[in-house]
Formats: sequence, C-alpha cells, structure tokens
Amino acid sequence: MAKALVISIDGMGGDHAPASVVGGLDLIAKRGRDIRFLIHGDKAQLDTLLDAHPSAKAISEVRPADRALGMDVKPSQAMRQGRGSSLWNAIASVEDGEAAAIVSAGNTGALMAIAMLRLRKMQGVHRPALVASWPTTRGVSCVLDVGANVEADSTQLVEFAIMGEAFFRAVHGTARPSVGLLNVGSEDEKGHEEIRAASVLIRESGLDLDFRGFVEGDDIGKGTVDVVVTDGFSGNIALKTAEGTARQVGGYLREALTGGPFARLGALLAYPSLQKLKAKMDPGRVNGGVFLGLNGLVVKSHGSADAGSFASAVRVALSMARSSYRDEIVAKLAKLTAPTSPIAASLAPDAG
Amino acid sequence: MAKALVISIDGMGGDHAPASVVGGLDLIAKRGRDIRFLIHGDKAQLDTLLDAHPSAKAISEVRPADRALGMDVKPSQAMRQGRGSSLWNAIASVEDGEAAAIVSAGNTGALMAIAMLRLRKMQGVHRPALVASWPTTRGVSCVLDVGANVEADSTQLVEFAIMGEAFFRAVHGTARPSVGLLNVGSEDEKGHEEIRAASVLIRESGLDLDFRGFVEGDDIGKGTVDVVVTDGFSGNIALKTAEGTARQVGGYLREALTGGPFARLGALLAYPSLQKLKAKMDPGRVNGGVFLGLNGLVVKSHGSADAGSFASAVRVALSMARSSYRDEIVAKLAKLTAPTSPIAASLAPDAG
Repeated sequence: MAKALVISIDGMGGDHAPASVVGGLDLIAKRGRDIRFLIHGDKAQLDTLLDAHPSAKAISEVRPADRALGMDVKPSQAMRQGRGSSLWNAIASVEDGEAAAIVSAGNTGALMAIAMLRLRKMQGVHRPALVASWPTTRGVSCVLDVGANVEADSTQLVEFAIMGEAFFRAVHGTARPSVGLLNVGSEDEKGHEEIRAASVLIRESGLDLDFRGFVEGDDIGKGTVDVVVTDGFSGNIALKTAEGTARQVGGYLREALTGGPFARLGALLAYPSLQKLKAKMDPGRVNGGVFLGLNGLVVKSHGSADAGSFASAVRVALSMARSSYRDEIVAKLAKLTAPTSPIAASLAPDAG
Repeated sequence: MAKALVISIDGMGGDHAPASVVGGLDLIAKRGRDIRFLIHGDKAQLDTLLDAHPSAKAISEVRPADRALGMDVKPSQAMRQGRGSSLWNAIASVEDGEAAAIVSAGNTGALMAIAMLRLRKMQGVHRPALVASWPTTRGVSCVLDVGANVEADSTQLVEFAIMGEAFFRAVHGTARPSVGLLNVGSEDEKGHEEIRAASVLIRESGLDLDFRGFVEGDDIGKGTVDVVVTDGFSGNIALKTAEGTARQVGGYLREALTGGPFARLGALLAYPSLQKLKAKMDPGRVNGGVFLGLNGLVVKSHGSADAGSFASAVRVALSMARSSYRDEIVAKLAKLTAPTSPIAASLAPDAG
C-alpha cells in the first residue's frame, strides 16, 4: 500500500465553513485514494459534520483548535495573535512535516502572513507570489503575482515565470506551458524598465521556458499563453477588474432575460444552455490560488467557496503534492543564480 | 447668431474611414446647431461621400490631405513622417486656432505623439493623460490614465484627478463628480508609495474634490466613483482586461444561445432583450477617449468605430468645447502649485 498523502485543512476558514469544508473533503474522499486529512478547528462542530459524511470521516483526523481567525483580521494582527487558531495550526502541520500541503478558504492576508512567518521562503526565491487560475476561451491559464507583493523587479518577475510555469505543469499536466509577460503593448520597447529587463533575462538565461514575449490585458481571457507573469499590483487589478466585468455582464444578461414575457419564455427554453453558461462563468470551477515560493504548499480557496469549490482547491493541492514542481523550481532557480547566468553576472559586484 | 463652433476632423483615420466619419458627422449635423466641420483627407472620396450626406455637407469644408497614416505606424515614425497627413493637418487646425477640437479614429500612438508635438502641454501639467469612458452598472465612469504614460508619481496622479474630474463634469454635467484612486485594497496602508502619497495630497491640498479614497478593480464596473485615477500601465491593463472579459463572456453567451434548437428558439423569443444587452455591451455607446492636458482638445474615437460611434466621439468634443473645463483645470492646478499648498511646500528646496 502506498503511503497516504496527508493534507492539512483549515476547517474554520471561509464564509460557509466548516460545512463547506467537510462537504468538499467528502467529495474528494469518495474518489481519492491514499489520502488523509488533518482538519483543524472546532472539534464538536467538525465531528458532527463528519458523522454526516462517512467517506470524509474514514480518512480524516480532527485536530482541535480553540478559535478561528475572522475574515477581516489584518495580516499584522494575524501574525501577532493568530497562534492557536485553526489556520495557524493547519500551517504548523506542514511546518512540522506531518502534512504535504495546507488548504484554507480563510482570510488571504492572514494566510499569506502566517505561512510566510512559519514556512519561510524557499532557497533562491526573493518574493513568494500568489498565483490565480483564470478561465479563458481556450481553457484555463494562470496569472501571477495577483497580490502578494505590490512591486517586482526584473529578477523577481523571472522567478515568478519559473514558479508559474512549474505550477501550471504540475496542475494541468502540460509538458511545456507557454509563458508571457503582461505589458501595455507587444513591441519590445513598450512598458516599464523592469518588464523589458525581465524579457531579456528570460531569453538569455538558458531557462528553457516556452517564452512568448509580451502579452496585453485582453490576451489573458483569450488564453494566448498558459502563464501570465506580472507584478502583484497589476495582477490584482487585472483579476478584480475581470471579476467585476464578468459580474456586470452577467447582471445585464439577467436583466435582459427577465425583461418581459417573451424574454422570460425565451430564457426558459434556453435554460439548459444558460446553466452551462453560468457554470463557465463560475469562479469555483477553477478554484485554488496557490502561494508559491515557500517551504510547503499553501493553497487558498475562495472565501465564498461551497463544497464543490473547496474540493477543487484540495485537488490543486493534491496535484501539486504529487508533482515534481519543487525540484523543477529549484533546478531553474539555480540556473538563474549560477555564475554563468547573465543575471548573476549583472548582480555581481564587479559588473557595474 | 452665435458664432459656429469649429471641429477639426481626421477624415481618413479608422478602420471604416472615411465612410464612417462622414456618416457620423451627418448624424451630428441633423441635430446640431452652430457647428462647422473641417474635414481633412482625400478630397475626391470625401466630396463623393458628402454629396450623399447633404446635412453634413452643408456645414463641412474639405481640406485636402494627400495621405493617411496607417493604423500600424509607430509614434516615432508618425512624428518624423506624419507631416501632410490627414491626422497631422487636422491637429494643425487646432494649433492654428481655427478649430476648437480635433477628432480622429486613427492610430492612438500617432495621435498622441503628433498632438503632444504640435499642441504641447498645458501650463502646470507635467504629463497629459488619456481618459477612457467606462460603462458601469450605474451608468458611465471614466478612467485615466489608460496608456499615455507607463508611470506616474504622486503629483501626476493628483493632476490626473483634477483633469479627470473636470472632464467628467464637462461631458456628463455632474456638478461634483466623485473621485477614487485605483489600488489593491481600500485601507490607507495598501499599495504603492505613490498612490498613498497622492491620497494624502488630494485630502490636504484644499482642491475641493469629492474624493472617496481608494477603489479596487471590481469597483470600476460597479460605478463606485465617477472618476477612477491610476497610472497608464495599470489603467491600460484594466481597460484591456475588461474588454477581453466582456468579449469572452459575450462569446460564451453566443455559444449558449446557438447550442441546440430550444436554445435557438429561446434566443429568438428573447431577441429584442438580447439586442438591448448587445447595445449595453457596445463600446461605441460611450465612444471618445480624450487626451487631456494639452493646449487644445484631442478626442480619440475607437479605430473600429461606425458612424454612430464616431458621432459619439464628436459629441464628446462638442461637450468639452462648450464647457469651462479648461478654466477649472487651470484654477485647480494653480492651487496645487500655490506656495501655501502642502505639495508646493514639499517640493520647495528648504522643505527637506
């Protein structure tokens, strides 16, 4: 029998926790093999829910945590006062080597702050990054950083490219994911100095990425590349603007299809098709942002996740835990800092 | 009789020029009063089109230009080789004081470069900005800068706020447009140093703006504020990401409503409502980006504009030309640089 893969779960994080969490784990338990969950949180509530979900119960162990962090707690408070919370303890299980990954639908800032504090950065990574999966007309792409840092210099952008490419391969199985840098035009001379320099570094560093150069905002939804690399400020604005636009258009559509008897009848006839449309626009379909670049896997589910969405996030954690993404990142980062790389040369004290 | 307002028109710019241009002018001519157009471009083509549009013909004068700039010409080429083109000559009419504004559906980069070269920056403006109108669930907002500059320091962001607020009042008639700074969170400590500093400057400078602090990407489509202020890099990415998302969702919708006989029948019944939806999603509805901060009004229509969209852009030019936006900007910029303003104080040599 293969050794079980252990995933640590923040049982209390998220708008619909713990019910959505246990429900999501049950969906995984019904199909998965050789998996175990450590669920951190309110023992009484979790035990009651597990009694109603025997598949999940069979592979789960509850670890009592006496409190949960609120969705509005600030990262600085979380670091100072988070000890003993379900989130803190769930991360500690990864730190202790008991679990391969942690999944939480709780407060993003708190998750990032505590994970950074306890798990620390991987060797060679200057800034961890938050990667988001993005539904496109061709399938799914990923975008990083979407908010872990507000700025990124050229070397950090190249690190994001390395981490994002390995993430995409791990989760989607693509042998050579394509990579692009988000910019305001596709010509070489466009954009910030940092982005232009990152483009040169990727091309010249022998990293063996399928790098396609610059992409623009409308390329994300087209799926022009698999991995879109940007700083956390632009990435966060792109992500939230896209979410807002999708909601806005969805609202127009609802309005259009309830505006009069013919429209309503039409909507009724087209109902199955419109349900498929709704599913396509559902953010839960590709749920699971990952905080890349730490000594341990940290997966963030949407705060509003239901059981199905939470299960998607757990699947992301399982795919990554079973992949060789960490070794790939380590190998590529080593190239980046090897003495022969142009980046290392440009950073060397005698280069200037 | 009031003196006619003269608008200079690039007759050849845009994917469907000159037909869409003359068609658009005809729509304006049928309703407008005391307006005159100077149309620059191919005299033979323009005369033929005007013969078919007598309303436009009655108030237009054709100014022959022997060539048109292509949609793919680079800004640097446009500045060096643009002389004598319809775009160049149309801008020159504003420079010479013959016309109050120029409208073009041509190449954005060429328009900005030649306008900057010939019209120059308004006194007190460090960086002109491109402002885009943005359909929201509440109506229309505007976002600036969407691509004239890739970076903006705090003073420049405050200038954008001043110009955007005056623009919004001029075009939409709102007495006190609300203003927000685009950021990755609404708390005071979020985001870049430049943005945080701009927020403090607006609050402390006595500019009398209805300033609402920070807004996020999803606030744009909600219409949380009338004027969204950002640097040209983030603004361009937000705009293109939103356009891409709207197209993506529109594509899903088309697919859903043609996927099978019931869906098709449903779509047929809901047709009038869906047409209204299409109109709402039509970028032409609020067509007319304006290049703010120059000595002269420069309005950019979408390159793909049809006659209706081009007319929208001309209406923006007319609203602005009839407003006091320039005086308002001058007055507010003066406050910004007045010796009592905290900004001027912070810039003064003895402040540090």
